[in-house]
Amino acid sequence: MNRDDPLKNIRIVLVEPRHPGNIGAAARAMKTMGLSALHLVAPREFPHLEAETRAAGAIEVLHNAQVHEDLAGALSGCVLACATSSRRRELRHEMMSVREAARELAAQAASHPVAVVFGSERTGLDRELAGLCHLWAGIPANPEYPSLNLGSAVQVFAYELRLAATAGEPPPPPEFEPATFEQVEQLMRHLEQTMTDTGFFDPENPKRLLQRLRRMLARARLEAEEVSILRGFLNAVDRLRR
Amino acid sequence: MNRDDPLKNIRIVLVEPRHPGNIGAAARAMKTMGLSALHLVAPREFPHLEAETRAAGAIEVLHNAQVHEDLAGALSGCVLACATSSRRRELRHEMMSVREAARELAAQAASHPVAVVFGSERTGLDRELAGLCHLWAGIPANPEYPSLNLGSAVQVFAYELRLAATAGEPPPPPEFEPATFEQVEQLMRHLEQTMTDTGFFDPENPKRLLQRLRRMLARARLEAEEVSILRGFLNAVDRLRR
Repeated sequence: MNRDDPLKNIRIVLVEPRHPGNIGAAARAMKTMGLSALHLVAPREFPHLEAETRAAGAIEVLHNAQVHEDLAGALSGCVLACATSSRRRELRHEMMSVREAARELAAQAASHPVAVVFGSERTGLDRELAGLCHLWAGIPANPEYPSLNLGSAVQVFAYELRLAATAGEPPPPPEFEPATFEQVEQLMRHLEQTMTDTGFFDPENPKRLLQRLRRMLARARLEAEEVSILRGFLNAVDRLRR
Repeated sequence: MNRDDPLKNIRIVLVEPRHPGNIGAAARAMKTMGLSALHLVAPREFPHLEAETRAAGAIEVLHNAQVHEDLAGALSGCVLACATSSRRRELRHEMMSVREAARELAAQAASHPVAVVFGSERTGLDRELAGLCHLWAGIPANPEYPSLNLGSAVQVFAYELRLAATAGEPPPPPEFEPATFEQVEQLMRHLEQTMTDTGFFDPENPKRLLQRLRRMLARARLEAEEVSILRGFLNAVDRLRR
């Protein structure tokens, strides 16, 4: 946590980047806008000479990058995560603009870690991974060719984050403590278990129930105390069955 | 001239680009934002395979690029030209933000050709060339490392140009049916009843629980189907007690 500079609290997360050159380009794009926390989820090749070449003067962003096995690891400790896509239909979430998302992220980053998540070059983020995020932002693009290079997408987002973080007065601190990524994940698991136990949810025939619930909770941007309230209620339901 | 789409009237001019890969990256960045008029002033190597590779699906922007001997040729017919730099001190002109410049350019581009001019990778635009332009715009950047890749600089500018040119378009209709006031009220009453029945909520000692839940649900902006899902779960809990 860093109260002096919200940009230091903003992670850029690249999920399964295929080309090391793009990792370097992302690092350079980040540094030009004052971002430094690069997190990589299962990169195909890293470290790599091409990443270092493309990073140019941002080599220390690469050297300080953290590598994770899965997205949950990269989001650990974050109170707000934003998935990005130029493929509007795929996420089927309410999409906001990069500009709006950057404002929300920068406001939270004044006091807590937040993350912006970019999918793999070819396939983007799948729904399951996007479902781990709270916000979904699309870079407005030519519908006939919305295919931004990964480094360019990071550049546009980093640019908006810098503008948002350096605009005017700092926002007032949030009134309530936001729930962390881990707290919401524990709530989801508890909910799934209790819904299964009550017979409401059939794990053999899940349809899209869990996805819908996850999306709803993400949109609610839960506070830590709300997670406690909901889990307290689930505990009371669990006791009924015993 | 094109009265239908201002983006078609906006030229991207690269002055003495050194690396063909950057020309390709600029072409791709342009097409993702709906720009198509690329003008090159004395490129060191063009055409070039690396430019084509980096252009990816924007190859026709490269093929239609016009090559000029000097900047005056590239600006021929334009009514407004904007020089770009991240080196504020060098231009010694009154700098505006990319966002402001994009608005002015897009407004003029509704009826006349305009241009955005990018200098060479190492040296930027010299004063003499910048003096041929009407506006001077800087991309806000980290003062310790303002060194955007040429393709990334084009991407950020093209992004702002697209936003400026398409501002005022209606947003897409919402994909899901929002819950009505009555549906959310029924859910609140059901929740209160079930929480009371399970012993989690004590109506004699309500504290602020119901208020907290109401605030959480309001923030979630529930959809009609989500209300059905939640009430379905509450029904399953209700059946447990019987």
